[in-house]
Amino acid sequence: MNSKTRIGIIGATGYVGLELITWLAGHPNFDITCVASHTHCGERFADFFPAFRGLIDLDFIEPDPRQIAEACDCCVTALPHGVSSVLVPQLLALGLTVLDHSGDFRFKDQAVYEAAYHLQHPCPELLQTAVYGLPELHRQQLAGCRLIANPGCYPTGTILAAWPLLAAGLIEPDSLIADAVSGISGSGRKAGADYNYCELAENYKPYGVTRHRHLPEMEQELSLAAGQAVTLSFTPHLAPMKRGMLITLYARPNAAGRRELEQTTGDAFLYRRFAEHYKNEPFIRVLRPGQLPATSQVAGSNFLDLVPVWDGHSGVIKVFSALDNLGKGAASQAVQALNICLGYPETAGLSAPGRVL
Amino acid sequence: MNSKTRIGIIGATGYVGLELITWLAGHPNFDITCVASHTHCGERFADFFPAFRGLIDLDFIEPDPRQIAEACDCCVTALPHGVSSVLVPQLLALGLTVLDHSGDFRFKDQAVYEAAYHLQHPCPELLQTAVYGLPELHRQQLAGCRLIANPGCYPTGTILAAWPLLAAGLIEPDSLIADAVSGISGSGRKAGADYNYCELAENYKPYGVTRHRHLPEMEQELSLAAGQAVTLSFTPHLAPMKRGMLITLYARPNAAGRRELEQTTGDAFLYRRFAEHYKNEPFIRVLRPGQLPATSQVAGSNFLDLVPVWDGHSGVIKVFSALDNLGKGAASQAVQALNICLGYPETAGLSAPGRVL
Amino acid sequence: MNSKTRIGIIGATGYVGLELITWLAGHPNFDITCVASHTHCGERFADFFPAFRGLIDLDFIEPDPRQIAEACDCCVTALPHGVSSVLVPQLLALGLTVLDHSGDFRFKDQAVYEAAYHLQHPCPELLQTAVYGLPELHRQQLAGCRLIANPGCYPTGTILAAWPLLAAGLIEPDSLIADAVSGISGSGRKAGADYNYCELAENYKPYGVTRHRHLPEMEQELSLAAGQAVTLSFTPHLAPMKRGMLITLYARPNAAGRRELEQTTGDAFLYRRFAEHYKNEPFIRVLRPGQLPATSQVAGSNFLDLVPVWDGHSGVIKVFSALDNLGKGAASQAVQALNICLGYPETAGLSAPGRVL
Amino acid sequence: MNSKTRIGIIGATGYVGLELITWLAGHPNFDITCVASHTHCGERFADFFPAFRGLIDLDFIEPDPRQIAEACDCCVTALPHGVSSVLVPQLLALGLTVLDHSGDFRFKDQAVYEAAYHLQHPCPELLQTAVYGLPELHRQQLAGCRLIANPGCYPTGTILAAWPLLAAGLIEPDSLIADAVSGISGSGRKAGADYNYCELAENYKPYGVTRHRHLPEMEQELSLAAGQAVTLSFTPHLAPMKRGMLITLYARPNAAGRRELEQTTGDAFLYRRFAEHYKNEPFIRVLRPGQLPATSQVAGSNFLDLVPVWDGHSGVIKVFSALDNLGKGAASQAVQALNICLGYPETAGLSAPGRVL
Repeated sequence: MNSKTRIGIIGATGYVGLELITWLAGHPNFDITCVASHTHCGERFADFFPAFRGLIDLDFIEPDPRQIAEACDCCVTALPHGVSSVLVPQLLALGLTVLDHSGDFRFKDQAVYEAAYHLQHPCPELLQTAVYGLPELHRQQLAGCRLIANPGCYPTGTILAAWPLLAAGLIEPDSLIADAVSGISGSGRKAGADYNYCELAENYKPYGVTRHRHLPEMEQELSLAAGQAVTLSFTPHLAPMKRGMLITLYARPNAAGRRELEQTTGDAFLYRRFAEHYKNEPFIRVLRPGQLPATSQVAGSNFLDLVPVWDGHSGVIKVFSALDNLGKGAASQAVQALNICLGYPETAGLSAPGRVL
Repeated sequence: MNSKTRIGIIGATGYVGLELITWLAGHPNFDITCVASHTHCGERFADFFPAFRGLIDLDFIEPDPRQIAEACDCCVTALPHGVSSVLVPQLLALGLTVLDHSGDFRFKDQAVYEAAYHLQHPCPELLQTAVYGLPELHRQQLAGCRLIANPGCYPTGTILAAWPLLAAGLIEPDSLIADAVSGISGSGRKAGADYNYCELAENYKPYGVTRHRHLPEMEQELSLAAGQAVTLSFTPHLAPMKRGMLITLYARPNAAGRRELEQTTGDAFLYRRFAEHYKNEPFIRVLRPGQLPATSQVAGSNFLDLVPVWDGHSGVIKVFSALDNLGKGAASQAVQALNICLGYPETAGLSAPGRVL
Repeated sequence: MNSKTRIGIIGATGYVGLELITWLAGHPNFDITCVASHTHCGERFADFFPAFRGLIDLDFIEPDPRQIAEACDCCVTALPHGVSSVLVPQLLALGLTVLDHSGDFRFKDQAVYEAAYHLQHPCPELLQTAVYGLPELHRQQLAGCRLIANPGCYPTGTILAAWPLLAAGLIEPDSLIADAVSGISGSGRKAGADYNYCELAENYKPYGVTRHRHLPEMEQELSLAAGQAVTLSFTPHLAPMKRGMLITLYARPNAAGRRELEQTTGDAFLYRRFAEHYKNEPFIRVLRPGQLPATSQVAGSNFLDLVPVWDGHSGVIKVFSALDNLGKGAASQAVQALNICLGYPETAGLSAPGRVL
Repeated sequence: MNSKTRIGIIGATGYVGLELITWLAGHPNFDITCVASHTHCGERFADFFPAFRGLIDLDFIEPDPRQIAEACDCCVTALPHGVSSVLVPQLLALGLTVLDHSGDFRFKDQAVYEAAYHLQHPCPELLQTAVYGLPELHRQQLAGCRLIANPGCYPTGTILAAWPLLAAGLIEPDSLIADAVSGISGSGRKAGADYNYCELAENYKPYGVTRHRHLPEMEQELSLAAGQAVTLSFTPHLAPMKRGMLITLYARPNAAGRRELEQTTGDAFLYRRFAEHYKNEPFIRVLRPGQLPATSQVAGSNFLDLVPVWDGHSGVIKVFSALDNLGKGAASQAVQALNICLGYPETAGLSAPGRVL
């Protein structure tokens, strides 16, 4: 008898799939019993990802709901949006617990989803039961749920940076500007000359500078957290590194916030607010005033490092939020949510430090 | 008789010095006749920078004013602030034309300099005669001047991004936020474990997040350009690449600006404004709506690429400004200013395209 | 009562120290109870290496033998050669089990050590009792020993590539040429402009091209393994990456070897020899003919991937040997040796896959 | 009337095409009057390669021989092998001087070409008139010729490293082993997940480890140079950098060579031989004993840096040969050959130093 949860990865040939398998292979409570890929069905997993030679002894199976349900109790769907929303209801119907990586189940409002993704949603009723898998916001709903919508990487970093400011009522809710930088794995395992090493190494550039799909997701959760409508300006950039994400969030204090910030040392005030806000969170590290984050300190880990700074000269609060787009922004956050969902210790399998090297 | 200008590089062992020599070695109107370095005096230049074996046949001399004045007609001082301000008056007194790379002669207001650099200025009278070497702002004063203060890299990218907005009276002058990213050469040729490849590769991080020395320099020039006091929030970051700089500038339109932006397609309106503003500038490229800059398109060149974008959703104007921190942000801008100063064609020696590869 | 081994890292501020702590922090049988550094004594470990905030709660102590002996049962000395040889005898005398990372205890012949390291050995008697910590060669002596000399990274990769050829008597023992490439972490956490990101990124170069210190170490162990004197030509290079090592070994077959290689498909013959030779080794992966290694498939793991190839055109056997210079070449190999030494399962704590990303 | 040569680039959307345009745009004797690409016909060149905005004002034309012949006097074909051999005869027939970048005209022996490229040659008669465009070997034939076959990058670096040893009769002609490393641009502007930044950054690996197409090309030229059959073992690797190439060549001295090497300091002896051999070559730099090359010192230039070393311990001569795979290994070498061919100064347009930064 196996007391571990048998887990499958559906869409296991992308970077998020690869990363999930890395985290789950070292987890004490999961057995990876299934990897599915339509294109690579029948191939050995370890031939496709040779880093796993000697560690993972599985062949890719067809992403067929019945076969998946036979092989595992729980699965993660790392599939394109529009594909997930077709497969997930079938997996749920077969009794599986599902964590979905796409945007298909992240929205409460069907219209917002359809506008952002240019798709009709085939099972809008699931939007109400799906839990947005950010443990810091929805820990209670995650326990025992059946369908988790894993948050986007940018939303994770941005929401957790802005939340303490909004919760404390310190800022103008329409003043938020998120300048975000991602490592290249955020673009996925793309084929295309534009993703060639030679095009991206030693290069920094913005992309998707208006109407990025992650924007309505951020505004939904921030508005929920704040209890009022929040508007955000969001600009993603690509930095020449495999993984890592840093959001520099700018906000204008409201009159009350400004008074508080000017009465005392603004940085110390903000530090106390943030530290208090996240005091019970195992994976949020609020750095002390004077310290600054770096993506290399969180890459490969499930940590998110936060530093709020008061720029009195120009009257702007800055919050630096560093995470791993593939870790807390994707795969290890999925594991954290599954730990909660399935009743395992929340930190199980998640103690890796950031990789400086 | 030599009809070229004999030029010397004082402080030729840093990255700006190296870059200057690269640009000047290929310039039709200059002869590099002197490289000076106290530490490396007597060594062969091409042994220190082996890329120049077979190209530059000079030994480092002592940075002694008399020796420099014998060897050249004009010189560039690439020295630390506080060192420049001692040497430069001596070089001027000996009849040399000087372009200085430090912050020592960039300020009109001695007090602002002294607050930013924590130094007393030894020759404040030169602050009035020195010309801030941004050709787009001060072309006329550059012609025939004796002392040029080469602008900082961040100020170059930020001022040229914000100027058309301020000149057109479109924005709130205290709403500017500049999120800036530099390649690592911006830190100079540093010795220290923190600058080790292993610490910086695959890593992205903010630094100097309040009161950066370039901030008062930006505010001085922007206020001059705007004819009113301009306040800026500035945050520099380091991206894992040798060279390249991108500033993402955020601004809130004022009521008049907002009306204009909403009457028509905001991006097209902004494009026309920027294109008109810079229509006679040989090194400013305003990209068409829908295009985005990338540092690799300007690295190694003297070009600065600008893209203004109207984010109607959040009511924010974004301007992307891409340049080479060592090129238009330092060495090739110095060459452009010297071309003007000495009466050469402004684009002489400056036709290199950006290096994608 | 704690049933784990209390372990200390002496010299915990370099890259090998950092890597050791990463591996040991996730190991089920070790408790890191001590980190020592003379320079950083009194500082918090997690302030020096912020990736460990929230994970390691220790202050650096002075590398004083008594304090170390109080804090732990076993320790790893990651110190410069010449420093280790002074401290290690004191730690042994206090009852500790020691794994030393330097070259100080790797040689059986004192004269060879002294010629390679230009030092007099203070305790040559320990050279006979120290075990060269390559599990594949010295597994039996490692069990229960008191002093382990951790092999160099280049020797690990080269010895394990050449051994099957020598053991099978297939090659001329003086024909070996090892062309080796290391990631930059192999140089250590150096301060110096030559180690700056800008000098090393996008750059490839040889160094130490004759008389590298690792050469006599390789020849000692290969001669032992072969039962006859083996001479090697060794050339290290630096590639622009943080970690990873690849050795391309060239050898000429002797007459008997040549006959065997030409009778059948040479690659298949070599594959069978290598696979058979390492069939019981948990961390040596012999790839099948047609497959090739890449450092990204082993980086971050304790695996070493081997591919032998017969180049019939020029009559040369090539063996590709890929490992992580910080993993199987240093820290995880140390853990493997300690597992054996202390009676833990040899693979305990060592199941991490290579990091593609 | 335009006294410059009007030149066209046929196949101008790959990395070699891009690099050619960079070199030719800064050349005093060429006017780029035509860029051709079937796929991008009608598009603006500067939209495809935005680094050239403001510098190159051309649209891609169809690679039609008549249109090309109208637009230019001379052209470079940067096309796949098998495509060049069809187009080039037509261009020659229309009176153009042609430099071809593919392997189609590099071989004197049709059978060798057909075995290496798995193609039948459509115009084998041209193999006799085409000149192998390595100026150091074939300068005289290049002057005034009509068809130049640009050498491969690996052959350039390897031939020039081995030639002085063979010419001096110092080595066994079947003992040559070339361990070669290329930057990723050597693979071309490929679309494919395997060429993604995330797969190649921080990764080092061998490829094409037997029967690489460049091998017969090297053996042809080395045999010609040596006046006897030369056999070579060749192994290419890919290093995580955009450009740069380093060949580490190993050779065994013959009896006569060994005597010479042991009579005096071997390195000084080899230095004198190499320096003498290349004393009139403007782009070959033989570094002094004790100096070592690095790809960053030649990247972006037309220089090739050579360092021969005698490893007396193992009886092996090592020669390090550093070049830019896109420079002396492709585009700038093409310019050098065209300079000779057309009667321009050989060094015209080729004075760029290596780019450290």
